[in-house]
Amino acid sequence: MTARQPRPIHVYRTRVGLRHTDAAGIAFFPQFFVLMQDAFEDLAVARGFDLNGIVTREGFFLPLAHAECDFRSPLLWGDEIAVHITVEKLGRTSFTLGYRFESPRDKHAAQGRTVQVVADTATHKPIPLPAALRAALEGA
Amino acid sequence: MTARQPRPIHVYRTRVGLRHTDAAGIAFFPQFFVLMQDAFEDLAVARGFDLNGIVTREGFFLPLAHAECDFRSPLLWGDEIAVHITVEKLGRTSFTLGYRFESPRDKHAAQGRTVQVVADTATHKPIPLPAALRAALEGA
Amino acid sequence: MTARQPRPIHVYRTRVGLRHTDAAGIAFFPQFFVLMQDAFEDLAVARGFDLNGIVTREGFFLPLAHAECDFRSPLLWGDEIAVHITVEKLGRTSFTLGYRFESPRDKHAAQGRTVQVVADTATHKPIPLPAALRAALEGA
Amino acid sequence: MTARQPRPIHVYRTRVGLRHTDAAGIAFFPQFFVLMQDAFEDLAVARGFDLNGIVTREGFFLPLAHAECDFRSPLLWGDEIAVHITVEKLGRTSFTLGYRFESPRDKHAAQGRTVQVVADTATHKPIPLPAALRAALEGA
Repeated sequence: MTARQPRPIHVYRTRVGLRHTDAAGIAFFPQFFVLMQDAFEDLAVARGFDLNGIVTREGFFLPLAHAECDFRSPLLWGDEIAVHITVEKLGRTSFTLGYRFESPRDKHAAQGRTVQVVADTATHKPIPLPAALRAALEGA
Repeated sequence: MTARQPRPIHVYRTRVGLRHTDAAGIAFFPQFFVLMQDAFEDLAVARGFDLNGIVTREGFFLPLAHAECDFRSPLLWGDEIAVHITVEKLGRTSFTLGYRFESPRDKHAAQGRTVQVVADTATHKPIPLPAALRAALEGA
Repeated sequence: MTARQPRPIHVYRTRVGLRHTDAAGIAFFPQFFVLMQDAFEDLAVARGFDLNGIVTREGFFLPLAHAECDFRSPLLWGDEIAVHITVEKLGRTSFTLGYRFESPRDKHAAQGRTVQVVADTATHKPIPLPAALRAALEGA
Repeated sequence: MTARQPRPIHVYRTRVGLRHTDAAGIAFFPQFFVLMQDAFEDLAVARGFDLNGIVTREGFFLPLAHAECDFRSPLLWGDEIAVHITVEKLGRTSFTLGYRFESPRDKHAAQGRTVQVVADTATHKPIPLPAALRAALEGA
């Protein structure tokens, strides 16, 4: 982690539930990726970007090309957490988002990243970022 | 549970993974329903019944009307379990399956039940059980 | 379902995410049970009942004895839903909660039920409902 | 992906179930990480390495430091898949595993990676790889 970070475009707040945890007593690591998806959906709703309607109505979809996460400290059942989304890169046909997980004990409990491609629903070929999507990911 | 039970039409064997467990150290109760679905899919594969193709190819689907489970003793990470499926009722437009969970410590760790309806893909109305489905659920 | 229902003691509001759905395009039925657990945890937080601390601090836990759900109409990705919790029965050593799922299209999309037992952490034997738990489940 | 790959130390075979999928009709991306964990547990069982007993009996645990996955082509409901595990690095106090996902349509449907640390149960400090773990990850 560098000291300078881009400003988050969205902060998603939620509580760690029993459903996130496993027998080790902490959040099961694949659940961090579920929470990244939840945060992305929350961003879309906040920006008025109709994520679940794009396939049928807009003719494109957003397949994931890559996902990763660095785990620093665990999340526990009952934790009030915040997932800070940053735009790491807005490419021509793809975009990279960062997700910083803040727990009650650690401002950098985990750091995730996703790379999503914009693809034409019919041809499955990459297409340039639509204006509505670019707008949703830019500015605040 | 009565002492006499119908003979199982299928036994699904699997291992309890970390993914099934929660911070209480045992299998998270909604995972019993996931395991019931897994067992049903395993039955379908064993009987050559193309579950995931029916909507597009056969024109019907199997919406769930009801699901329940009685929990008697917990499942633990690493348990080799068996889910015994019985046909509790073959109705005209629906069928009821029973699922007995056997753990290394308890032959009756849990007992589940699902009621599924056969519905026309186009009209969503109940239709009589197709012959291929009835065959898959009858006999051994 | 009878026309008369006990007044809900809590309403949990959330949004159906991609994580709840399956390839049939609707919420995967085990996710209704996850949502019932989420609603119960939300109730506990609202009433100041420390659900995740009870095992270690209070000496009892709340094993599930039974769970069930009637499914009437599907939940879709993006649906804003409400889960209305009612107390169906407060027994001496157990309690039964009802969960009515309200979707944007159906006030009775699904109706769930859980039966939980209060058990001593050390002996695993049923014990009378502790006063703090009874208080959390009574009144409004 | 380079042309030369280390030989897999284990191949985990399973079927994509409805539970892995989402409303996009394909496997939900966090489920690839669940499948990586499943594959790791399957490896441990095959090598006689008691994964779920290590915390209590052996005095160490294996916290995840990093996980990632490149997604190339989707997994579909009903797919018979194979997850090929390779050892990418055996460090002094950590190890890196690779996971190649093979679907019926694509030998390189996805490529995952996990970095796990060996930590002392009491102090949570990194410790050298125990001999039993090193043995389980070496050779074939």
